[in-house]
Amino acid sequence: MPVTMIGMQKSQFQQVKSIDKLARSGFLNTRAGSIKTPFFMPVATRGVVKGVSTDMVAATGAQVLLSNTYHLHLHPGEKIIKKLGGLHSFNRWEGPILTDSGGFQVFSLAHVRKITEEGVEFKDPKTGDLITLTPEKSMQIQMDLGSDIIMAFDDLTGLSLDSRGRTEEAVERTHRWLQRCILEFKKLTKELKADQKPLLLGIAQGGLDKKLRQKSIEFVQSQEVNGLAIGGLSVGETRQEMHKMLDFLATLYDPSKVRYLMGVGDPIDFKYAISRGIDMMDCVMPTRNARHGTAWVGDKKLNLKNLAFASDSSPIDKNCDCHTCVNRYSRALLRHLFKSEDPLAGTLTSIHNLRYLTRICEEYWK
Amino acid sequence: MPVTMIGMQKSQFQQVKSIDKLARSGFLNTRAGSIKTPFFMPVATRGVVKGVSTDMVAATGAQVLLSNTYHLHLHPGEKIIKKLGGLHSFNRWEGPILTDSGGFQVFSLAHVRKITEEGVEFKDPKTGDLITLTPEKSMQIQMDLGSDIIMAFDDLTGLSLDSRGRTEEAVERTHRWLQRCILEFKKLTKELKADQKPLLLGIAQGGLDKKLRQKSIEFVQSQEVNGLAIGGLSVGETRQEMHKMLDFLATLYDPSKVRYLMGVGDPIDFKYAISRGIDMMDCVMPTRNARHGTAWVGDKKLNLKNLAFASDSSPIDKNCDCHTCVNRYSRALLRHLFKSEDPLAGTLTSIHNLRYLTRICEEYWK
Repeated sequence: MPVTMIGMQKSQFQQVKSIDKLARSGFLNTRAGSIKTPFFMPVATRGVVKGVSTDMVAATGAQVLLSNTYHLHLHPGEKIIKKLGGLHSFNRWEGPILTDSGGFQVFSLAHVRKITEEGVEFKDPKTGDLITLTPEKSMQIQMDLGSDIIMAFDDLTGLSLDSRGRTEEAVERTHRWLQRCILEFKKLTKELKADQKPLLLGIAQGGLDKKLRQKSIEFVQSQEVNGLAIGGLSVGETRQEMHKMLDFLATLYDPSKVRYLMGVGDPIDFKYAISRGIDMMDCVMPTRNARHGTAWVGDKKLNLKNLAFASDSSPIDKNCDCHTCVNRYSRALLRHLFKSEDPLAGTLTSIHNLRYLTRICEEYWK
Repeated sequence: MPVTMIGMQKSQFQQVKSIDKLARSGFLNTRAGSIKTPFFMPVATRGVVKGVSTDMVAATGAQVLLSNTYHLHLHPGEKIIKKLGGLHSFNRWEGPILTDSGGFQVFSLAHVRKITEEGVEFKDPKTGDLITLTPEKSMQIQMDLGSDIIMAFDDLTGLSLDSRGRTEEAVERTHRWLQRCILEFKKLTKELKADQKPLLLGIAQGGLDKKLRQKSIEFVQSQEVNGLAIGGLSVGETRQEMHKMLDFLATLYDPSKVRYLMGVGDPIDFKYAISRGIDMMDCVMPTRNARHGTAWVGDKKLNLKNLAFASDSSPIDKNCDCHTCVNRYSRALLRHLFKSEDPLAGTLTSIHNLRYLTRICEEYWK
């Protein structure tokens, strides 16, 4: 397989080999270290993965932790985290950290919101305080957090509820906001040496509309960004629709830029996305599933709460090398812990499911 | 300091040195390994310490895990655990396991109970099923669980509510039940080789009555038991009352038997008990306190939920070598996690508090 080395002036992504026609593996270089691709990012919503300490997450082989700007802005606040030396120092994650822009949470969580050209207004669900997020503000918060991979602030639309008009408006606004993000990012990073700057990734939108998707991807790739993120998928469309869109998008990518499919972690979709040239993904599913008793084994999802596991002395997966399986914490023990509502059940199962996704990635690193 | 070696036919306890007039250190030999004394046993109510995997508990230096017969009998049941190869195989604890007899939980938890000479009747709080625990049944369950240190089934009385008559009745019944426990224990272990038998500890009762206490201790020490447990303290009396009783009891001990003070883990009482010749203790306090946000440092108890810790980048105790402190999970992070209701907060603080008690013990092992 030919090794393609990409000039590092233009790109932080370095392709090492093409796996087949579309899948690829390589390295993404960040100020906090080089990352083997493809990779999965565990979601540490409030700075840590719920119930799982960062040393345990690192032990699953995860290389990059994703944290949520929206949640950390509300509590404890980016100023406190900055004062404490940044997110790495706060959560003890030594590798690279990616922060989202807050856009998705405003879309999915905030009850009251008003989208204007300036940005988004919403109410803090706890205090009722009015909060404004703008492209500039999102960049500032992510810099304060000490993120190594910063996401542009985008205007995300849901699928079924939105007309093509709204989708088009969102694409156009996302592009204008990307340009404001880039300006602000340059301002905030101008004093930093090249190897100390975080990366900035732009987000392409366009729902299931091929023309809008093409326009958006071409636009983002033409901008001064270190990578391309695909937003607005895995938000309610069918699996077939998503896969067809991934097929189409694969024809449009700039090989010099890393490609990030946001919010995908279902094993079937995860493997499919890699086969279509995606380099990085994140999702709450492996850990959220785990906390609800679902463990991933091969192509199956086991509901560990089932009575069938009450006397099952085998580990979740006898072929798995995660901490939970290697220590032979059994399905019977996990069922017992789920039934006893001991949070350790979610912790041990989260560790397994995270390892599951990274093991898929490791196949590509060989 | 003279080293006293105790003949192993009579005793599993081997004293190595006297620390001062009363405190001592040595070894307690069990079929699952030799334990350095004095020691603290983390409480794994349902087989594991809530939120803390057994490998993490072992990493705190704890040597013995205590599990509750009552809880495991109700769920998942000792027959399932036996089928799975016993508690060690179920919870992955490699060192010795002590099980209580169920007596204390019947006393403190069960809503409906009837105490007769035969045993105790109570209703399963979940199913409403009528359950009978007797001295014989308690021995059988503990053997099925695969316990290495088995506790006799006793009749525990509370303090303030009970008259001297009730206390005396409980002492007498505890003694009769101990003899039934010994008979049943011998029957259940008669096929086992000497080094494969679990230990059996008898429990002395007597409340705050010196005469009853003396009678009870002398009785228990005269029986074929491997050690003496002090029950019925730390159940509502004042600290001063408890300490005075420990002073008195210290004059009565047989040096060849290990001494277990049940249910004590408050640091002040823990140190006091060791200074009065106690070899082993257990308590839910370090882990229950931890889950509620209280961390132990020196003579202080820190409430990690306090606003004062919001920007405190120091670990719980900069002189502590527990996993939580060594990894520099800060007070600020822990406060944030407690505020976010992430169970990881309880896990990391439990690890610290468990290590705290074992560090006290380690001073005696030198």
